[in-house]
Amino acid sequence: MASPTRLVEVRQKVLKQNDLVARALRERFQEAGVYVVSLVSSPGSGKTAFLERMLTELRPRCRVGALVGDLATDNDARRLARSQAPVRQITTGTVCHLEADMVRAAIDGWDLSEFDFLFLENVGNLVCPASYDLGENLRLVLFSVTEGEDKPLKYPTIFNTADVAIVSKIDLAEACGFDRASALTSIEAVRPGMQVFEVSAKTGHGMEPFLSFLTSQASSKKARCQLAEGRV
Amino acid sequence: MASPTRLVEVRQKVLKQNDLVARALRERFQEAGVYVVSLVSSPGSGKTAFLERMLTELRPRCRVGALVGDLATDNDARRLARSQAPVRQITTGTVCHLEADMVRAAIDGWDLSEFDFLFLENVGNLVCPASYDLGENLRLVLFSVTEGEDKPLKYPTIFNTADVAIVSKIDLAEACGFDRASALTSIEAVRPGMQVFEVSAKTGHGMEPFLSFLTSQASSKKARCQLAEGRV
Repeated sequence: MASPTRLVEVRQKVLKQNDLVARALRERFQEAGVYVVSLVSSPGSGKTAFLERMLTELRPRCRVGALVGDLATDNDARRLARSQAPVRQITTGTVCHLEADMVRAAIDGWDLSEFDFLFLENVGNLVCPASYDLGENLRLVLFSVTEGEDKPLKYPTIFNTADVAIVSKIDLAEACGFDRASALTSIEAVRPGMQVFEVSAKTGHGMEPFLSFLTSQASSKKARCQLAEGRV
Repeated sequence: MASPTRLVEVRQKVLKQNDLVARALRERFQEAGVYVVSLVSSPGSGKTAFLERMLTELRPRCRVGALVGDLATDNDARRLARSQAPVRQITTGTVCHLEADMVRAAIDGWDLSEFDFLFLENVGNLVCPASYDLGENLRLVLFSVTEGEDKPLKYPTIFNTADVAIVSKIDLAEACGFDRASALTSIEAVRPGMQVFEVSAKTGHGMEPFLSFLTSQASSKKARCQLAEGRV
């Protein structure tokens, strides 16, 4: 290809600029006492269903909100609105990932101190979002039991830039012939020691341990949401 | 973000260069009489399983080969080698799509006239591959019944740049509560009249009508593979 060097240079400049915006966002989030969690995965891994379940289960006890990214449609924001939490859609057009500046623009007018948790659902993509810091405290990478156990090996960067892996749609494990040991070995190979949760947004399986983990993480960051022990 | 204009300019230059390489590839494919089919989808939609099934079913009657793209690993090439067809892996590192130049390099040394069909499996991604012509005759976009019926609405560009939609993993339709009418409505909304095939690489459901379609398309392009009518 022509101009590969020039493309890399421009990309690095964009990334550096993104990092500056992300750093400023992180400071704002910290000042406001909001714990920010981002979700990345393939299209169709169940980010929105998982997020809807999280919002619905957390909302009676915490102040939660979400931004959802897609190339087109506000389908996800409309779905998530059923949780009664404030949700805004970011449409990226042809851009394959969220950038910090899109998050900055999307939270305009929100008083961040009114949230305990803010969730950022990225565009469905296992490549591009890896490179863009959004100022989040915790990045979750989801992969569903339907996708194939070697996804971590094929998309190592996104697993390396995430903090926690969520194996989603665990209710379909048997129907798909999901090989749990192989999936865990794949994760361990690219990110030794990575914490893994198995969940089903449909049945609720695994939500309780995950939400307990999430709130304990948030508490350690001095987020304002204090849940009664064992309640979540 | 800083420099968006510059980024767009560079991207357009890269795309233009890609189009030139793709055009040259298309001429080579045509001269050699090989019919080239590319596959795009999310990670985990079943491109490799579908391709393995196609190679296995076509191989006794046609001369078939494949290139498979991934960021990392040669897992797919090793899987596809079970079909006994010649297969080469392209690893893209951090690049979220195949480019025509990668295809050009990967076929180096192959006598293209020895193939009736060449398959190009793209990196799993519903965004980036849309912009890159690979010189193929036919582009298939897969989406599995596990992914959600509104994927075409959320990723319209990739559906618009593809020729045919494949609904994969149809054997899981019931377990997932797949809403066929909704999925077809979504496809029709972004690409009116798009031809759709429902398949299961696992059970073989739907393979026969799809392979009949494929070989009839190839024949109309004067590919050398002439299958006995009704055999595929």
